Amino acid sequence: MWFTGLSGSGKSTLANLAADELRNRGHRVEILDGDEVRTNLSKGLGFSKEDRDTNIRRIGWVCKLLARNGVIAISAAISPYREVRDEVRKMHDNFVEVFVECDLDTLVERDVKGLYKKAIAGEIKNFTGVSDPYEAPLNAELVVNSAKESREESLERLLSTLEKLNYIRGAAQ
Amino acid sequence: MWFTGLSGSGKSTLANLAADELRNRGHRVEILDGDEVRTNLSKGLGFSKEDRDTNIRRIGWVCKLLARNGVIAISAAISPYREVRDEVRKMHDNFVEVFVECDLDTLVERDVKGLYKKAIAGEIKNFTGVSDPYEAPLNAELVVNSAKESREESLERLLSTLEKLNYIRGAAQ
Repeated sequence: MWFTGLSGSGKSTLANLAADELRNRGHRVEILDGDEVRTNLSKGLGFSKEDRDTNIRRIGWVCKLLARNGVIAISAAISPYREVRDEVRKMHDNFVEVFVECDLDTLVERDVKGLYKKAIAGEIKNFTGVSDPYEAPLNAELVVNSAKESREESLERLLSTLEKLNYIRGAAQ
Repeated sequence: MWFTGLSGSGKSTLANLAADELRNRGHRVEILDGDEVRTNLSKGLGFSKEDRDTNIRRIGWVCKLLARNGVIAISAAISPYREVRDEVRKMHDNFVEVFVECDLDTLVERDVKGLYKKAIAGEIKNFTGVSDPYEAPLNAELVVNSAKESREESLERLLSTLEKLNYIRGAAQ
């Protein structure tokens, strides 16, 4: 399950809600969060296109190892570039791309980690959505919008998408 | 299961034999081979102590993700430094270090990949066992010696070690 979207859009929040529910249904789930991956897998990589792509390929490869062993692997990194996301898609049999949309005004208003303010002031370079590109998916399995819908609504739609694809078990009774 | 030993000592061979047998017994198994990892996880890293340690930490982290989801994760990288191997050991609940010993004369004679000749001629730098250190484990769960015993004998001893530790199922009848 591949989340993509700007920083602060709600990828990790939704990923964690989904993981809880999927574990309740008896699935094994592993979340590869953007920050955790940067520490454990990609220390030393920066935020150039090349380094970002390398980071995404690594996450994709680890997800593949997990998925082929029956684990639902969830990536929650920004993954701004379409081409490398599609490359990762090709590595997997059952790939679900979830675009977590959110307009920039809302993100700046939220500014969960205080990063947008710094990025707009030019204190952080290569900041996706401000000074670095973000290429929205063209054929995501699901698009949610964290500015317009509640996290519960998004979760509901995500679970229903996974059920329709027959990738997960039904809700526990 | 953490194999360590010089290049050509037989880590991957033994790891693959063990993986086959463990899969036959119904276990999920994933081998993280040194070369495959260098391609997918650690491209750009060299062979300085620092880079080698980073490589090993990454493998250790991926093994942890797999192991906590019920997969027997096998590393078959050289992993020449004791301290970082012990660091990885601490990340795991059930850790089995397998030292695949082999004297240098035998390795040079075998020279499976033709690397020792080049390393001795100085054409490859930082070559473990020739121009780079190898720190043998002090408390490995198992030591096998590929110069002195057959691969079948080593496999037998490995399986018996895993059985004694209660980490694996018995042989299929």
